[in-house]
Amino acid sequence: MRIAVLNGPNLNLLGRREPELYGHLSLADIETLVREKATSLEVDLDWFQTNHEGEMVEAVQRLPGRADGALINAAALTHSSLALRDALLAVRIPFVELHLSNIFAREVERRKSVIADLGIGMITGFGPQSYLLALQAIVDRLRDG
Amino acid sequence: MRIAVLNGPNLNLLGRREPELYGHLSLADIETLVREKATSLEVDLDWFQTNHEGEMVEAVQRLPGRADGALINAAALTHSSLALRDALLAVRIPFVELHLSNIFAREVERRKSVIADLGIGMITGFGPQSYLLALQAIVDRLRDG
Amino acid sequence: MRIAVLNGPNLNLLGRREPELYGHLSLADIETLVREKATSLEVDLDWFQTNHEGEMVEAVQRLPGRADGALINAAALTHSSLALRDALLAVRIPFVELHLSNIFAREVERRKSVIADLGIGMITGFGPQSYLLALQAIVDRLRDG
Amino acid sequence: MRIAVLNGPNLNLLGRREPELYGHLSLADIETLVREKATSLEVDLDWFQTNHEGEMVEAVQRLPGRADGALINAAALTHSSLALRDALLAVRIPFVELHLSNIFAREVERRKSVIADLGIGMITGFGPQSYLLALQAIVDRLRDG
Amino acid sequence: MRIAVLNGPNLNLLGRREPELYGHLSLADIETLVREKATSLEVDLDWFQTNHEGEMVEAVQRLPGRADGALINAAALTHSSLALRDALLAVRIPFVELHLSNIFAREVERRKSVIADLGIGMITGFGPQSYLLALQAIVDRLRDG
Amino acid sequence: MRIAVLNGPNLNLLGRREPELYGHLSLADIETLVREKATSLEVDLDWFQTNHEGEMVEAVQRLPGRADGALINAAALTHSSLALRDALLAVRIPFVELHLSNIFAREVERRKSVIADLGIGMITGFGPQSYLLALQAIVDRLRDG
Amino acid sequence: MRIAVLNGPNLNLLGRREPELYGHLSLADIETLVREKATSLEVDLDWFQTNHEGEMVEAVQRLPGRADGALINAAALTHSSLALRDALLAVRIPFVELHLSNIFAREVERRKSVIADLGIGMITGFGPQSYLLALQAIVDRLRDG
Amino acid sequence: MRIAVLNGPNLNLLGRREPELYGHLSLADIETLVREKATSLEVDLDWFQTNHEGEMVEAVQRLPGRADGALINAAALTHSSLALRDALLAVRIPFVELHLSNIFAREVERRKSVIADLGIGMITGFGPQSYLLALQAIVDRLRDG
Amino acid sequence: MRIAVLNGPNLNLLGRREPELYGHLSLADIETLVREKATSLEVDLDWFQTNHEGEMVEAVQRLPGRADGALINAAALTHSSLALRDALLAVRIPFVELHLSNIFAREVERRKSVIADLGIGMITGFGPQSYLLALQAIVDRLRDG
Amino acid sequence: MRIAVLNGPNLNLLGRREPELYGHLSLADIETLVREKATSLEVDLDWFQTNHEGEMVEAVQRLPGRADGALINAAALTHSSLALRDALLAVRIPFVELHLSNIFAREVERRKSVIADLGIGMITGFGPQSYLLALQAIVDRLRDG
Amino acid sequence: MRIAVLNGPNLNLLGRREPELYGHLSLADIETLVREKATSLEVDLDWFQTNHEGEMVEAVQRLPGRADGALINAAALTHSSLALRDALLAVRIPFVELHLSNIFAREVERRKSVIADLGIGMITGFGPQSYLLALQAIVDRLRDG
Amino acid sequence: MRIAVLNGPNLNLLGRREPELYGHLSLADIETLVREKATSLEVDLDWFQTNHEGEMVEAVQRLPGRADGALINAAALTHSSLALRDALLAVRIPFVELHLSNIFAREVERRKSVIADLGIGMITGFGPQSYLLALQAIVDRLRDG
Repeated sequence: MRIAVLNGPNLNLLGRREPELYGHLSLADIETLVREKATSLEVDLDWFQTNHEGEMVEAVQRLPGRADGALINAAALTHSSLALRDALLAVRIPFVELHLSNIFAREVERRKSVIADLGIGMITGFGPQSYLLALQAIVDRLRDG
Repeated sequence: MRIAVLNGPNLNLLGRREPELYGHLSLADIETLVREKATSLEVDLDWFQTNHEGEMVEAVQRLPGRADGALINAAALTHSSLALRDALLAVRIPFVELHLSNIFAREVERRKSVIADLGIGMITGFGPQSYLLALQAIVDRLRDG
Repeated sequence: MRIAVLNGPNLNLLGRREPELYGHLSLADIETLVREKATSLEVDLDWFQTNHEGEMVEAVQRLPGRADGALINAAALTHSSLALRDALLAVRIPFVELHLSNIFAREVERRKSVIADLGIGMITGFGPQSYLLALQAIVDRLRDG
Repeated sequence: MRIAVLNGPNLNLLGRREPELYGHLSLADIETLVREKATSLEVDLDWFQTNHEGEMVEAVQRLPGRADGALINAAALTHSSLALRDALLAVRIPFVELHLSNIFAREVERRKSVIADLGIGMITGFGPQSYLLALQAIVDRLRDG
Repeated sequence: MRIAVLNGPNLNLLGRREPELYGHLSLADIETLVREKATSLEVDLDWFQTNHEGEMVEAVQRLPGRADGALINAAALTHSSLALRDALLAVRIPFVELHLSNIFAREVERRKSVIADLGIGMITGFGPQSYLLALQAIVDRLRDG
Repeated sequence: MRIAVLNGPNLNLLGRREPELYGHLSLADIETLVREKATSLEVDLDWFQTNHEGEMVEAVQRLPGRADGALINAAALTHSSLALRDALLAVRIPFVELHLSNIFAREVERRKSVIADLGIGMITGFGPQSYLLALQAIVDRLRDG
Repeated sequence: MRIAVLNGPNLNLLGRREPELYGHLSLADIETLVREKATSLEVDLDWFQTNHEGEMVEAVQRLPGRADGALINAAALTHSSLALRDALLAVRIPFVELHLSNIFAREVERRKSVIADLGIGMITGFGPQSYLLALQAIVDRLRDG
Repeated sequence: MRIAVLNGPNLNLLGRREPELYGHLSLADIETLVREKATSLEVDLDWFQTNHEGEMVEAVQRLPGRADGALINAAALTHSSLALRDALLAVRIPFVELHLSNIFAREVERRKSVIADLGIGMITGFGPQSYLLALQAIVDRLRDG
Repeated sequence: MRIAVLNGPNLNLLGRREPELYGHLSLADIETLVREKATSLEVDLDWFQTNHEGEMVEAVQRLPGRADGALINAAALTHSSLALRDALLAVRIPFVELHLSNIFAREVERRKSVIADLGIGMITGFGPQSYLLALQAIVDRLRDG
Repeated sequence: MRIAVLNGPNLNLLGRREPELYGHLSLADIETLVREKATSLEVDLDWFQTNHEGEMVEAVQRLPGRADGALINAAALTHSSLALRDALLAVRIPFVELHLSNIFAREVERRKSVIADLGIGMITGFGPQSYLLALQAIVDRLRDG
Repeated sequence: MRIAVLNGPNLNLLGRREPELYGHLSLADIETLVREKATSLEVDLDWFQTNHEGEMVEAVQRLPGRADGALINAAALTHSSLALRDALLAVRIPFVELHLSNIFAREVERRKSVIADLGIGMITGFGPQSYLLALQAIVDRLRDG
Repeated sequence: MRIAVLNGPNLNLLGRREPELYGHLSLADIETLVREKATSLEVDLDWFQTNHEGEMVEAVQRLPGRADGALINAAALTHSSLALRDALLAVRIPFVELHLSNIFAREVERRKSVIADLGIGMITGFGPQSYLLALQAIVDRLRDG
């Protein structure tokens, strides 16, 4: 089983960016944690980060044939990118939406997701653990199907 | 470690109620699954369901001293119960909000939660698995601090 | 044929409550009128009133197997109770919504019903006669299919 | 006792128009049913249909002296015709508003009536039976007064 | 100088319609008063009333070449008729909008006019005197340029 | 008969202020015109202008016993001054609201009047003639009762 | 193949009405252009114009059996006529909505169409050419299936 | 004179619940203070608390004949309970609404009361003193008429 | 202890202004009552009324050093004066907001206060007694601190 | 004559993406059709597709001097890209907006275009034919002037 | 060159009022700084502060002939004073709007300016430096034309 | 001291793009002016322009360690780019927002900035001078601390 992890704008700054909100781990630290769990679940992992909406769209377009499912932390794109939504509508791959912070405890603009209804579900607010829970969730779903 | 699981109105109908949306397992079936996982995690579980807002409020009021954390599937109370919100504000116990269906893929009124900002995070859309993920999440959070 | 009649909060005060709006008959008076008509229609009647949303929810939950259809005057619950809506979604029993006063001639908050789209139809504004018309309507519908 | 029945735009298409929503009876079929019931209630019936708002307004203007009450299925005029509202305000004749389909289970624009607060009450969602119930309702009201 | 007076739906009921709001004079009574004043101002008057939006539109279309200005009491059409607005945009004849009752002291829907910005001005609230003031206003404007 | 004319903020600039909108006459020029007409109508005139909301309020407070009616061009106070509204509610003197420009052809904020429902009526859009028409209107109303 | 062209209120004024917006051709000039193209496409044309909503509704009601498709320039009716919408829902004939001016570059009220979702598509902003493009579009669609 | 004091959901937690907002006194402490003042005013006191909306409704229903007036701290029910509103409309007993915290300095949802217009007045923001002031207010009102 | 009482626009009309709403006592009558109570509480009173927003602002600016607390009945300024709000923000003196009528039982515009969140609390709806309760409230608060 | 065709995000997926909505032709298939028609119209065609808003902006910036007009199917950028709007404002080249699906029959967010008022007009809902109609439209417009 | 500086309500409190937001300099301190810079720029300065909207309006009315440009810190008047807007519309003198605090980082009500579109531009958020920058800006603009 | 100047989409078109709104200077001309002033202020300047949101985000991400402050003219990104906002939240470098045109005198969508509350302040409406004023502002702020 192959799982792609797509990370959106500014996640490359993790650890430096508002640590009281997002924690002190860098994105590379998180990747390491997720790869460990992926290994224990016998899953191949494709890790990706971009600050460009267009590259996010194309990463989604490449998923069919390369991944069985995806974890998506779309960051700022979550709230307004209809292009990302269209790409997900087009490829129709199963995915889990995740967020580090609890988006419901943040500003009003952050409480809306334009992709949430397309995914299996959403996991939000658990810091790096959000990735691990989401990985567990999609693997279980794909295996139990 | 003791974890309370609080279930709101109409969840006693699970398995009968809109199975295309909520699945075919009954609430008792889910309780069995969650208890199994609790045992494997060495956690005591307190399971509760009510159709009455007032009882839900009082169940929350009883939590301090009896539980270290809670899983809350507030069902219809999620979207409008300020009394539940007040109870959670008062007892300040760590909790994870969960939903069986993806509330973001439903009617507009279901996309709002009046308790979401008070919890650690939310897990929504994974059917009975939402309970298992939420249990994992709160145990990890309580153990790791 | 068995028909349940479910009455919501404060209807136990009828006759005393705002008589210029709701008339001078008590709820017991109305029950007598409805039972008379039920007899003439050869229908069994189950009459219920509660001031508690949770009991209303459970009354709906009990309908399957006990009633072929229902008349629902949800009173204040009409306008905001998603728990009642969920119960009606779950049991999927045919029902007619009714109101004593014309809810469209009242305050703005009273002009919205969160259950109206789930029923066969609505009858509003005819005082106690609303019950009689609603009984006729559901019996005809259940008999004619 | 004389009762006028006023039918608005496109009701002349009944039976052809969206039968899954409005049923297979034509307006003439319904007229026959209503006339039968009127006869059994010893009521004279004046039946009218128009696709023109202006003619509907003038039909209402003619009511005083010619009818003791009215049944009004204003169709599309229900939702926006202030001219119809003004006519009803002017003649102040008792009337029952009725709809074939449950307007609360339809698009948002159909859930508003600009005349509902002027009538005795509304009956909506029972198909052709809506006419029969409305006739019963207004006759009872006028006789019991 | 020729002035057309265009009266909209239900104004033919004046005197009968809500006299506490619109007064006891009939439209014919008002026409007599306005014709007297027109004579004293040496103005020819063309008086028109209709309950049909389409006829109101065509009455406006006929104005060029037949009238130097118009008084328009559009009644219910005031608040929603874009067709009337389009006709007035097309013929570009000077007109004064008038109302018998003070539309600002009425329901919210009556406080909006879709033609008000096209006219010279509006006179509202003076009962039949609104016609006399409006006639004075347009004659002065047309004479003084 | 004594009529007070109350003019609000910036009307002292008339003739200089946006002449394409308000015309070239100064407020003194308009006063002269209005006094002429007042003489011909055998009415005493009390003319007042202020740029201060508080003085406008007190001018209204002084009206009882000093004037039989008032013409009010409240200018910018029209749209937001609840204090002016309260003063008019308190003294309950008959008044006509007037405006030089057609407020319905202006920005959205200018289309609302917080005093309009308290007056006899409104005359708007006729330039200085608005004053003359308003004077005629109030004198007729006060004389005819 | 027979195509009906239905034109709404005030289009009979074309050439006179706001020529900077709608151009200098009369509706008869446009009809001539469209008939020429219809001939070259070997299509029969039924041309209709009305200022009355009720007649527009009835023109739509007559379409089945008389036309294979329709071009509809509903003018002011575009934005609010639910009666026209109901007629189109009832007859379910394929049609193309068209407008002379670009309705998206106009006032807010003109940017909404209550019939747009019922047609094949919309062509807006090309002046008289909108008719020619729409004719081409519907003929291609009907021939290609 | 008999005064009932009705306390809504979560007020049983006072002293434990958000003390920076609600203070350190328990509800029993407050009851003691209020009873002392009641004694000095020679008033009988009926003290009641519930976490259930239905019980609050029924407590209101029981008031006639048992109390001359009421103090109501409806807590979370303040903002949304139409059932409570209906009960108060039905019994029409004089009451004073009170709140411990200043509801106007809190979240937006807390600034709305669905019962405020039915009471004599509201006292909000004075902590336990709100009860004492409210008691004084209602006693004075009832004695002075 | 020194307490200032600041009264806003039109309160000088009390007794004359809408007595069914505000009662028959004049502001001087109320001042007398409040002074009596102040004497019994051993408090110095500074009484002020103005119809001018600017003077109200300056009265607030003068408070520091001259008063220990204030009672503010801002009347119409309550609902919109950001300048008054700024003054209160600047001087940060403890105050109680009060109103004679129950502002929650009035028009929508009157239900909003732009200063309410800055005060200790609000007392509204008790007529002249509102002043006496507010005086009691602020004295208790300042003494118990 | 040179015409540029600019295609926005995800159009490279055509044929794969939601074929029930967008049809089975790939973008290359459509390009072939459009090039055939361009040849018959003796027009040079510049075909462009991108998933990146920035590249779309720069494609527009390059138009002056390279194209006489443009066809723009901005896809998801249609609804929110102010940067695309700014680019079109800057280069002021004539263009036709087109869409494959009828955007008025889709979700609410898709019914808004931030560029529509800048183009000559819009053609929406005809599938691949939308391109051919748009090409015809712009060529006619550029040739007829 | 003569520049007027107009300061609105409560700015006379600077240094005392919310120093964490507005800084510790008094308005006199700022005036000294601005006068120094004015001298270095060879500009005459007219400095004005008022807490009264009416005086602000009249200060604007006096500008023509006395100043070549103005700096306006309207404080609370910024957000709602249509009278100030009207005065600025009338005198049409070039001005720069300035604010000490960053109004976009404040409450929602403070983010709207009713005069911003009339000025050359706005400078907001730089504390006392806002005055110096604004002076530089207007002098450059007036000298460069 | 090193200052970065970040310019957003379409600013590379300056001088060509809507010169009546943005002036005739090209971005290179403005860069020259700003570099001159930077030299006189003894500041190093890093000048950057992009049409790509992702590059803008990364330009911000690179700022720490390379610049002491920034001037940001985000153009169309100002109004909607949450990714830019997130980048600025992450790097927390002091910046001044600037605009050439007065965004408050433009369309509604342009009056909102999603980054304004993060900066020191905003300067808008002075054309190229906006850059010079903003440079002065940030240098003063950084030097004065």
